[in-house]
Amino acid sequence: MKNYKPKNRLSAQNYIDGVLQGDRVILSRAITIIESNLESDKVLAKAIIQHILPHSGKSIRIGITGVPGVGKSTFIEAFGKYLIDQGHRVAILSIDPSSQRSKGSILGDKTRMEDLSGMEQAYIRPSASGDTLGGVANKTAESMLLCEAAGYDVILIETVGVGQSETAVHGMTDFFLLLMLAGAGDELQGIKKGIMEMADMVVINKADGDNIRQSERARIQYQNALHIFPESASGWSPVVTTASSTQNIGMDVVWEEISKYKLLVNENQYFETNRNRQKINWMYDTINEEIKHLFYGSKSISEQLPKLEQQIISSEISPVQAAQDILERFKNTVFHS
Amino acid sequence: MKNYKPKNRLSAQNYIDGVLQGDRVILSRAITIIESNLESDKVLAKAIIQHILPHSGKSIRIGITGVPGVGKSTFIEAFGKYLIDQGHRVAILSIDPSSQRSKGSILGDKTRMEDLSGMEQAYIRPSASGDTLGGVANKTAESMLLCEAAGYDVILIETVGVGQSETAVHGMTDFFLLLMLAGAGDELQGIKKGIMEMADMVVINKADGDNIRQSERARIQYQNALHIFPESASGWSPVVTTASSTQNIGMDVVWEEISKYKLLVNENQYFETNRNRQKINWMYDTINEEIKHLFYGSKSISEQLPKLEQQIISSEISPVQAAQDILERFKNTVFHS
Repeated sequence: MKNYKPKNRLSAQNYIDGVLQGDRVILSRAITIIESNLESDKVLAKAIIQHILPHSGKSIRIGITGVPGVGKSTFIEAFGKYLIDQGHRVAILSIDPSSQRSKGSILGDKTRMEDLSGMEQAYIRPSASGDTLGGVANKTAESMLLCEAAGYDVILIETVGVGQSETAVHGMTDFFLLLMLAGAGDELQGIKKGIMEMADMVVINKADGDNIRQSERARIQYQNALHIFPESASGWSPVVTTASSTQNIGMDVVWEEISKYKLLVNENQYFETNRNRQKINWMYDTINEEIKHLFYGSKSISEQLPKLEQQIISSEISPVQAAQDILERFKNTVFHS
Repeated sequence: MKNYKPKNRLSAQNYIDGVLQGDRVILSRAITIIESNLESDKVLAKAIIQHILPHSGKSIRIGITGVPGVGKSTFIEAFGKYLIDQGHRVAILSIDPSSQRSKGSILGDKTRMEDLSGMEQAYIRPSASGDTLGGVANKTAESMLLCEAAGYDVILIETVGVGQSETAVHGMTDFFLLLMLAGAGDELQGIKKGIMEMADMVVINKADGDNIRQSERARIQYQNALHIFPESASGWSPVVTTASSTQNIGMDVVWEEISKYKLLVNENQYFETNRNRQKINWMYDTINEEIKHLFYGSKSISEQLPKLEQQIISSEISPVQAAQDILERFKNTVFHS
């Protein structure tokens, strides 16, 4: 299956030219190649990435997260339209490692962004599918480079605030935006611990109608709370603001703050330092994922693990001992074969 | 060097018996074996751990962190003495991967805990030394098991709140306590992002004399801030309290809250679930560290990395491509040798 070579592929040069000219159809087809697991496509993807690399990077990359129900799609639609009105070209990507299982990613249902998806200056791409978060994140990050080479100067990368994918998104963006609701129960707010401290900005969404006063109270509460957080390496103090995506209120403030952030981090050179760090980490994360895969992908290893877990829980064997036993087995099979 | 066999070693059974009888001298010597990198000691360590394993676990494990200057040693001395007054036996360990370089770990200077170190019911052990956080943490976690087997029912594990070691301590304890100061500048508070969200309890230390009112204000501020954090899997809402270690004020409240926590997590079974999860993670963390070591420990790999980093930063090569190139090299040297 992996050696099958699809007939409808263009040459690498065709994809590169098309992407650099901002051709949306070619861009989509190039991303499909990036996402593909076929061996022949991987060779093509490598050539495409290698050539567009010097043309990438010229954008502000914004991570957007928040639990289901917070109004992420509506916010992105309103914010994206605002940015386009200001003359920007906006690409919207998402990371959702669960999309394969749930048979539909966050952005899978493009109709939820009806206005935006019809606009020439917007490019919307649902989450890549894949078995591992690392794989999915890699594909999204490479797609991001392609979108930049195609001239999109604002990249929005969306994720759901309930899992590990936030760390991945945080690791590939310049600015991290967390959507919250005022007065929602703990269940609804159910974002993972640690995500709050990543936020450069918290937007209290659905601040309209009867909800305005409550949202303002929540804004003050969050702002006070964020003040006691340890300072960011960027030198930026996180801001809290309110917005109504359905009423198109507050989009200007969100963008204004992001622009202030950009000024600050350009000046103190955190922007470049951070981007370089992210690129280096990207290599190491990929290596670490792959060497783990070499180990856990081995059948003789994976068969042993559940048994060892049981023995650890019943205190028959120490965790370190269990690790050493299985590593011994790994070294014997791999190194002496 | 590694094959050198020290002459002053006892038999495994001697160590096991001594530890189970609560003999502090034997306990210390057993921990020295756990910490040793000699091959002969590793065999001995394995036998000791294997036998004391069923006798371990019967304690509450408390992680304590806070930046230098917050008064950690003084707090631990006051809190330890309070616990001993209540009839407990207290073991104090620490994790400080930097101890080797700085030629002295947090607890290296035992004289800072003069009273406590003289007490029969207290056992104080400075941080193990080692090159990697994983290695140091493993040794501390195994020492903890030995202390439990020796009858210490409260284990305090100290670390400095400025690095990665907090995650390691959080991963091996039941309760995580963060020491802070009222009105300290950002520099002094300089704990790492993410640590705040791990805390089950924040103690505003040095709440005495002129500092009392300010500490009370800080307490309210932190308490309000922690309320908006996502809820813990334990079902516990983090508490903030004030204390004066030099005046022995507030130690009862700290212990009362930890006891409440213990009741809660025993009832909702989080205690056991969490301990089992920690044990399983311990195995996986050890495996993952070791397979990384297999890769990065290879000279032909480590020599290439700085060059690749440079090429990535100058956009000559994509991070994923760089990772794939070096993984190819690794597979060729390891698998086909």
